[in-house]
Amino acid sequence: MATMEGSGSASYGKDVQTSTGGSQTDRAAVIIDGKAIADQIREEIGAEVAKMKEAVGNVPGLAVILVGARKDSATYVRMKKKACSEAGIQSFDVTLPEDATQDDVVAHVKHFNDNPAVHGILVQLPLPKHINEEAVLEAVSYEKDVDGFHPINVGTLAMQGRKPQFVSCTPKGCIELLKRSGVQMSGKRAVVLGRSNIVGTPAAMLLQRENATVTVVHSRTPNPAEITREADIVIAAIGKAELVRGDWFKPGAVVIDVGINAVEDSSRKTGYRLVGDVHFQEASQVASMITPVPGGVGPMTIAMLLSNTLEAAKRAYGVA
Amino acid sequence: MATMEGSGSASYGKDVQTSTGGSQTDRAAVIIDGKAIADQIREEIGAEVAKMKEAVGNVPGLAVILVGARKDSATYVRMKKKACSEAGIQSFDVTLPEDATQDDVVAHVKHFNDNPAVHGILVQLPLPKHINEEAVLEAVSYEKDVDGFHPINVGTLAMQGRKPQFVSCTPKGCIELLKRSGVQMSGKRAVVLGRSNIVGTPAAMLLQRENATVTVVHSRTPNPAEITREADIVIAAIGKAELVRGDWFKPGAVVIDVGINAVEDSSRKTGYRLVGDVHFQEASQVASMITPVPGGVGPMTIAMLLSNTLEAAKRAYGVA
Repeated sequence: MATMEGSGSASYGKDVQTSTGGSQTDRAAVIIDGKAIADQIREEIGAEVAKMKEAVGNVPGLAVILVGARKDSATYVRMKKKACSEAGIQSFDVTLPEDATQDDVVAHVKHFNDNPAVHGILVQLPLPKHINEEAVLEAVSYEKDVDGFHPINVGTLAMQGRKPQFVSCTPKGCIELLKRSGVQMSGKRAVVLGRSNIVGTPAAMLLQRENATVTVVHSRTPNPAEITREADIVIAAIGKAELVRGDWFKPGAVVIDVGINAVEDSSRKTGYRLVGDVHFQEASQVASMITPVPGGVGPMTIAMLLSNTLEAAKRAYGVA
Repeated sequence: MATMEGSGSASYGKDVQTSTGGSQTDRAAVIIDGKAIADQIREEIGAEVAKMKEAVGNVPGLAVILVGARKDSATYVRMKKKACSEAGIQSFDVTLPEDATQDDVVAHVKHFNDNPAVHGILVQLPLPKHINEEAVLEAVSYEKDVDGFHPINVGTLAMQGRKPQFVSCTPKGCIELLKRSGVQMSGKRAVVLGRSNIVGTPAAMLLQRENATVTVVHSRTPNPAEITREADIVIAAIGKAELVRGDWFKPGAVVIDVGINAVEDSSRKTGYRLVGDVHFQEASQVASMITPVPGGVGPMTIAMLLSNTLEAAKRAYGVA
């Protein structure tokens, strides 16, 4: 699957028919190249940051708080800082020891809340077990909550006539992929697989805002395949390697695969490979468009983090 | 339809099969008697209030703010105060003139926020046009937001692992009707017709919390009848008189009709009668259970307002 990365091309701006009739089994789906789309967005953000610097003399600032020494978390933080730097966004960071107290962490959050050069605050999850994540996340001012996790941002996302300060990065990235691939959402049926706070729930809210008719399928749904087959657009976010098979899809469906699961693979040096929640090979014979894993939704998450930070800075500096 | 009020009986505590096969056209649905269920809940609340008074010497308090002289609003406020009084809940009220300023209204809200004898605050809507409803509603402390309209309460309702302080009264009443009628929601397909902040959106969140698989159908859904026919449970909240016909339902579906619409009726002294969003006569031939209008969801809304006020007082006084 890794060899597919970069080989496909998304059809920018074209209106794609999501539910064409007839057999699709004789052709593979268009690959939505998340890496290429994310790169383009990051370039656009870089240009806007440069413009902002010229206009107001300031750039957006993102603060990242890392607690403990988890290797994966350290890698994510490094990637985020690198992405900031490439886009001209200033990054602030604090690394606290594994045994930092909750009060320590909250104190750093509050410090960043008060710092006018910081427009977004990100607490890298998971936090060590002795710290209450909810309490820490809620200490982040909802006006700097670039992760979109604060209940006020979730609530205003759900409400008609309201606009959240921030939308959670991964679901925002999913919708951006659909938009930039020319997929019409209004009036279409969408199924979201999974109802997590971080992906499934906000993804459903976003699809509904685009006027799709949305069904959320979850672990207690007795017939997920049958319901998923009704959908023109499917966002899979369940965290189970290749659980979603080809026969779950209506021919011509558009498939966004949020899952990133490591499965054993003795043919690789690392001993594993990454796969999505969707069985890519099967699904790509049925779908009209599909995101690969890796190289699909993943790269969009960081791009949306930069986008959220830029938006916050624009609000702070009154830049259009 | 009014003659049906009180004639049906809900099947308390019985587990009802929502999707039985075969033809249902030869029998009418069980009527879910919202009036009787609401009366029972109000009695239960009255008993709890009496217990609270004995235990801590205090009773719950509900503050109602009415602005202007709308007849319907005045009637609603009077009904709410009467219901409070019957349940032993203390009510506080302020009536402001039509030309009250937004600052006036907000000042009264804040006054009630600070009053420890007030556990719930309700601003009767609609407010006069010169007042920003959103600003007034957001001035209500989310800990006294018995209407459940505050974004924090909407957000925590949407989020897994979180619990809102309050759930909006009408959708809470719908779920209570289903529960007290013995309707199993877990694993069932539910369709919510309408996506308003006050009913449709929170109703969908509540059904999902009960582990139903929920689809929200709205004005931009091209085939609402087809999708509604997939549902075991339907909550209709669109505000269009009898738009939802009998053939929208799967045989055996459970139908909760939130709509209250006045239609001309020259045979009545008033010149009109009230009907729901659902064509009752047709639907009751197909559904297994259905709420009438009036006498279905309507009476539950006030019962849930009392229930929310009681809950808030329990939290304030640390009563289980």
